[in-house]
Amino acid sequence: MLRYLIIFVAVTNFFATGMYVVNPGPQYPPTKGEVWPKPQYEKKEDKYFTHNSSFIITPTNYTCDILNKAIERYAFTVRALHNMARRSRKNKPHRHRQVRGAPTTEKYEEVHRTHALQKMEIVLTSPCEELPHLNMDESYSLTIDRISILRSESVWGALRGLETWSQLFYLTDNYTQLRINKTHIMDYPRYKHRGLLLDTSRHYISVSNILKTLNAMAMNKLNVFHWHIVDDQSFPYQSEKFPNLSALGAYHSSMIYTHEDIQKIIAYATERGIRVLPEFDVPGHTRSWGVAYPDILTKCYDKKNVIGLGPMNPINNATYTMLGQLFEEIQEWFPDKYLHVGGDEVELNCWKSNPELQDYMAKHNVSAYQLHAIFMQNVIPLLQNKSLPIVWQEVFDEGVPLSSDTIIQVWKNQWVNTMVKILEAGHRLIFSASWYLDHIKSGGDWTDFYIADPRLMVYNATGNDSLLDNIIGGEACMWGEVVDDANVINRVWPRSSAVAERLWSASLAASYRARKDALTDARHRLEEHTCRMNRRGIAAQPPNGPSACVTHIHQ
Amino acid sequence: MLRYLIIFVAVTNFFATGMYVVNPGPQYPPTKGEVWPKPQYEKKEDKYFTHNSSFIITPTNYTCDILNKAIERYAFTVRALHNMARRSRKNKPHRHRQVRGAPTTEKYEEVHRTHALQKMEIVLTSPCEELPHLNMDESYSLTIDRISILRSESVWGALRGLETWSQLFYLTDNYTQLRINKTHIMDYPRYKHRGLLLDTSRHYISVSNILKTLNAMAMNKLNVFHWHIVDDQSFPYQSEKFPNLSALGAYHSSMIYTHEDIQKIIAYATERGIRVLPEFDVPGHTRSWGVAYPDILTKCYDKKNVIGLGPMNPINNATYTMLGQLFEEIQEWFPDKYLHVGGDEVELNCWKSNPELQDYMAKHNVSAYQLHAIFMQNVIPLLQNKSLPIVWQEVFDEGVPLSSDTIIQVWKNQWVNTMVKILEAGHRLIFSASWYLDHIKSGGDWTDFYIADPRLMVYNATGNDSLLDNIIGGEACMWGEVVDDANVINRVWPRSSAVAERLWSASLAASYRARKDALTDARHRLEEHTCRMNRRGIAAQPPNGPSACVTHIHQ
Repeated sequence: MLRYLIIFVAVTNFFATGMYVVNPGPQYPPTKGEVWPKPQYEKKEDKYFTHNSSFIITPTNYTCDILNKAIERYAFTVRALHNMARRSRKNKPHRHRQVRGAPTTEKYEEVHRTHALQKMEIVLTSPCEELPHLNMDESYSLTIDRISILRSESVWGALRGLETWSQLFYLTDNYTQLRINKTHIMDYPRYKHRGLLLDTSRHYISVSNILKTLNAMAMNKLNVFHWHIVDDQSFPYQSEKFPNLSALGAYHSSMIYTHEDIQKIIAYATERGIRVLPEFDVPGHTRSWGVAYPDILTKCYDKKNVIGLGPMNPINNATYTMLGQLFEEIQEWFPDKYLHVGGDEVELNCWKSNPELQDYMAKHNVSAYQLHAIFMQNVIPLLQNKSLPIVWQEVFDEGVPLSSDTIIQVWKNQWVNTMVKILEAGHRLIFSASWYLDHIKSGGDWTDFYIADPRLMVYNATGNDSLLDNIIGGEACMWGEVVDDANVINRVWPRSSAVAERLWSASLAASYRARKDALTDARHRLEEHTCRMNRRGIAAQPPNGPSACVTHIHQ
Repeated sequence: MLRYLIIFVAVTNFFATGMYVVNPGPQYPPTKGEVWPKPQYEKKEDKYFTHNSSFIITPTNYTCDILNKAIERYAFTVRALHNMARRSRKNKPHRHRQVRGAPTTEKYEEVHRTHALQKMEIVLTSPCEELPHLNMDESYSLTIDRISILRSESVWGALRGLETWSQLFYLTDNYTQLRINKTHIMDYPRYKHRGLLLDTSRHYISVSNILKTLNAMAMNKLNVFHWHIVDDQSFPYQSEKFPNLSALGAYHSSMIYTHEDIQKIIAYATERGIRVLPEFDVPGHTRSWGVAYPDILTKCYDKKNVIGLGPMNPINNATYTMLGQLFEEIQEWFPDKYLHVGGDEVELNCWKSNPELQDYMAKHNVSAYQLHAIFMQNVIPLLQNKSLPIVWQEVFDEGVPLSSDTIIQVWKNQWVNTMVKILEAGHRLIFSASWYLDHIKSGGDWTDFYIADPRLMVYNATGNDSLLDNIIGGEACMWGEVVDDANVINRVWPRSSAVAERLWSASLAASYRARKDALTDARHRLEEHTCRMNRRGIAAQPPNGPSACVTHIHQ
């Protein structure tokens, strides 16, 4: 009997005697069938359904390739769980033991058992769109019953609803039965730009790991893959017009993205309702361009000696000619309406050191700061209104005049002040300052990401909610200095899941107590979600502490 | 021409203008054919040999299974590089480009080219031992020439020499040729206990990842796999005598180590000259034992209420009877002379709260501290001199009388004082305090591990070198709270490589300048070593910053 005592004593309990009782078993037992990110409205009943292999999903009204493929994918995902249960049932009884500490489902056993699920109808009320976009409609409603209904206005909402549907399934404690509760969900995202930045220049990331990342993004309802594709260190983008950029500027011929690779990545993302936002960061962070094209960069001087190449040369027409032609190619290859042109961390000291630029600045009475403004003013028209620009906050900070449709990405210190200024100037912004995945901490840090909410920050600072709508979202940023194929997946997941829920779900309550409860709730749900990612082939790392995720049932 | 300028400007150069010139290409270009950990004595000439498929390795004097298998393994490893070169030669010329910034080998091209290697003789001067042990001889000498000679007194030295031999090979800049330079090496370890602790209780680690870890240990010349196999959270060791320990105490039936698994792991380790040191931590960290056997644990009280189970019950004979029988089984299954019996972090407050123990302490006039001493004094004789004990430092700190052959593992704060006390008491010790792999830092931290040297610490504190020999080594510790199969390999490697070199190679020089140079040197070598691990299937993460490791040549 005593052993039940230990099991049910809460882990975090401190006693009068100062003892810290450690529970044998997982520290935060995972939930069963809870959805990540948390839906806006969810009502779940005790009554549950089982799953058998005659279950079908049928689209009604409209359908399309994207929807049909998604149905196939999610049916497969649920069948994999179904097969785990089947294998467990065939096993010897002594192998059925549940992971200790997990919340028990057995009490439902007799009372709430109902029928097997029969089918799910997907009611799409508009024809499918072909490409995800900033203003796509991702809302959906989902009713789980013997005949379930997933209803959405757009195919993107249907994708989000299918993901939710797949997450509502859970295995019983001994893994012998797959269940889903009678549930009603109405759901929609709080922010419309929910991104993950991946830097593929400091280290090359293989196409297969990018596809894996897109899969995980779909599991977390993230909808923008911000591809920071080139930077100082290497130029893996293989241009058709300027093949030497990668032939000389990539790390190695095995470390490039061909047009074919890019098409594959965009198609894969599109099928999952994810936009691919390419970033070609100018005029800084461009040294790898200079391996093939040194003339478009600025020679940096130490007194009279050239000591290297710095940012792009802002007074060389060749720079703009090449950028214009390259942008044209990029716009052809990447279908998204937005193109990120960077603009961060420009090495103004290099410009200041260059005699030619010194002359120019003297003659036109402009500072190096203003040179940056001039550069960006020359670059943005090169998009020829075929793309809208996204830029890092420096471009705004340094007073570059920007059209009102430019989106500004906030990443630096004193981000609240910066956000207020950007919003007051009438711009839209996306937020990243609290979500740098390259900053790590012993024992884990996703809760820091989780509690950061840009709209709340601005509201708390200004008491004004009229500006908040222009905070259209944010991005978790995986800079690549110490991340490559060996660790990128487990460095990004499940830490980005925290950002994903913050951007999709309702905001955290204001009271300290309510936030604490919400965090504890999230800890348990994130355990389930991490295990779910593991089961679907994403090597997400443990979010909290001791835990056990059963990914395979052996016979 | 300009692009050569950038390439050769040092990365870390700060200029008068305050510019930070970023090199396109890797931040610390990898070395070519440098050995990790660094050999004690190495003389390398410019003259080099190529490798072709007629090359053979022949043991002379003595040989055995362990040696023959190692020869096969290492011949295979080098053949894999050979095949990369072969594939590169078959590729179109424009695909041969080297990773920029890598030190060039082309200058040797004409001058130093010699013949292909013909063979290597392994001269073993004693018969093979069957099991690695604390005092095994790991020294070897290696002469690379057309006919190379690897000479060692013991098979363990031959294993270390073969690893070194495989690391001396390098691919030319464009990957088209595999080379090895004329070299003479005399090598031996500075510390004899060079371990890695893996905790398989907080999270289960699969057998295949343990085998991978052993492979990586051999690549780093680590020789003790400290298997912290059970703890509070789960009991994955499947005992024959007490099957319920894992049947009830493991997380799940898929998360156990069977006798067969253990045999496989020990055999794999033995073939690589690695000892498997099992730890069964008592009397604390044992709550998972209590799921099946609550009576051997102490009931912890809050006033009059039992609130859980704490450390083992030190006044229950059943505890010792069971431990004696279990130790017998462990001694039969694990051939190492040492058995780690833990002894850390005993929850004395639980003992103090228990009325029965309160009576006992009053009657015998002993404190809870002394109860710990009594417990350990009762436990150590259970080893029946068939194993020698290793214990965590608390057992020494708390005044438990220990025989002089007990080894003490130092892990807590103020480690220098603790080491001095242990050494003055005539004990041997192993050091871990600076090498906790669960402590992580943004941007990487292996250099912190690298500069920590227990003998230097004690010498600097005491000015006395007569005590130093009893510091017999140390261990990097991978506690499992936030590490599972998803991230264990890249969390451990190459960070443990830093510890491995500290324990094998000569000590760092005292002068600040020399240490700084040694660190820079190590950065470049660790880049090569990390890439080498990647090529051999170990997902080691980037150690320094931007880099590029070519692992496959596609055709």
